[in-house]
Amino acid sequence: MIKIVEVGPRDGLQNEKTILTTDDKFQFISMLSESGLSSIEVTSFVKPTSIPQMGDAIELFSKVQRDLGHKKISFPCLVPNLQGYITARDLGVKEIALFSATSDSFTKKNVNATVDETFERMKEVVELAKKENVLIRGYISTAFGCPYEGKMDISKLLKISEKFFNLGVYEISIGDTIGVAVPNQVRSYIKELKTNFPINKMAMHFHDTRGMALTNILVSLEEGVTTFDSSAGGLGGCPYAKGATGNVATEDVWYLMQSLGLETGISIDKLAAASKFILDKVNRNTESKFLRAYLNTGKV
Amino acid sequence: MIKIVEVGPRDGLQNEKTILTTDDKFQFISMLSESGLSSIEVTSFVKPTSIPQMGDAIELFSKVQRDLGHKKISFPCLVPNLQGYITARDLGVKEIALFSATSDSFTKKNVNATVDETFERMKEVVELAKKENVLIRGYISTAFGCPYEGKMDISKLLKISEKFFNLGVYEISIGDTIGVAVPNQVRSYIKELKTNFPINKMAMHFHDTRGMALTNILVSLEEGVTTFDSSAGGLGGCPYAKGATGNVATEDVWYLMQSLGLETGISIDKLAAASKFILDKVNRNTESKFLRAYLNTGKV
Repeated sequence: MIKIVEVGPRDGLQNEKTILTTDDKFQFISMLSESGLSSIEVTSFVKPTSIPQMGDAIELFSKVQRDLGHKKISFPCLVPNLQGYITARDLGVKEIALFSATSDSFTKKNVNATVDETFERMKEVVELAKKENVLIRGYISTAFGCPYEGKMDISKLLKISEKFFNLGVYEISIGDTIGVAVPNQVRSYIKELKTNFPINKMAMHFHDTRGMALTNILVSLEEGVTTFDSSAGGLGGCPYAKGATGNVATEDVWYLMQSLGLETGISIDKLAAASKFILDKVNRNTESKFLRAYLNTGKV
Repeated sequence: MIKIVEVGPRDGLQNEKTILTTDDKFQFISMLSESGLSSIEVTSFVKPTSIPQMGDAIELFSKVQRDLGHKKISFPCLVPNLQGYITARDLGVKEIALFSATSDSFTKKNVNATVDETFERMKEVVELAKKENVLIRGYISTAFGCPYEGKMDISKLLKISEKFFNLGVYEISIGDTIGVAVPNQVRSYIKELKTNFPINKMAMHFHDTRGMALTNILVSLEEGVTTFDSSAGGLGGCPYAKGATGNVATEDVWYLMQSLGLETGISIDKLAAASKFILDKVNRNTESKFLRAYLNTGKV
């Protein structure tokens, strides 16, 4: 069984220019929740001014919790700091995601902190979350390469993975934030990682910026990874290459898994309907070739 | 060393709606010839009325022969029958490609003949070509699936491969004409093929209609295939799924090979320049995510 963590409503929409209404976002998440996905990242509890697309986190999560909270689905949210955590927890968030990266240049540009400082900032959140039985997932950005520092050495990824596991996260999500990872690199990094940490606590988070996401997923599968992050319809973009592709599309991951005989529990027609809905709202076509063929032909 | 057979000027342009001038096509081929490609399929010697985009085969090949003929590059051409062969040979064509498929429904719709009849038709061409030392390459369409008959059994591919090798082709190009092949299928079909025929006489010809081309190429490499057909910029489309992607882009193949440390002899900046030139002429963006990122960022 392959687990797909749907990150479209957060990682995807965050990189879309069109600011959507809370109703549209909720409708998207509601449609996704019908598709069989077991984990859907809802939003990010950042300051409303810092990322306008995430400015309605409180309202959006409240609707999700009220109308979809009874479903057997995780609805994780990103929290950047203690204030964000408290807001999220008070609304009933049961799983949070925390962010760091392998590159100081990247975290400095993004959150005005070194990598070590991002871990300092997490400490009080983690302590409270553990006490309150809130699950914690750790995102590692720029695991394979950084827009400022170039290729990232495996030693940095190993160090940050260890820091996250020492904090007590249940899973790390290893992010190819700018889509520069290639199959041989992915294979060798996972081989190193799994000699140090349990493979079932690692998710791979690929971007398809250079079209390598599915080959990277294929070798990840061969190395034993069973959890992948992806974005419905390939929602999102890449802020470091104008007009370029962002997260790998959930439909692409579904199609690869289906072709390999691996179960995801996802109904493709319901997933595609959710993607079509949201792509129409942000007014663009999908970057997923499979989804385009599927919507054109009506069959897999 | 990986050999890439560039099929953009023929297979690519054949599926583009915009009919180009001979000068533009020549310019495209000339730019491709600067990139390090060792084989560039130029055109198809069909009746000018049957495929308008190929209507200038005589004029185009003559220019190629005159201005680029001194280069160490193969310029194969498709020939559908004896008349086409004679025209091509008289112009100096040194390598021809012959077409068949694994599906009778497909060949009937395309050339109004059963698969067996396509081989009957080839006989006189093959006899003459062998006598005249013209190289022959065999294309097998619908190797993995057919738009009319669905999934194609490996037994059909084995039978057609044998027919081609019995004719005396130096290589077969195994075509996923409608882009339905998936990695496990590709692996198992190649495993069967290579127990019967030499792997170095097999090229894989993938279409990226459903985004699986690179994963299919990755497993083909693992099985020992070293020759791949592709189309500069992903030129072309799929007549069986409106708006869908056609041939895998040569740039995508280049990037995968480069990432795996496999040499192709191709200069990416010259290849990308040729693709940009022709995509502007047919007035559309590339389907290659890598090429898009490369053109946006100016670096690999």
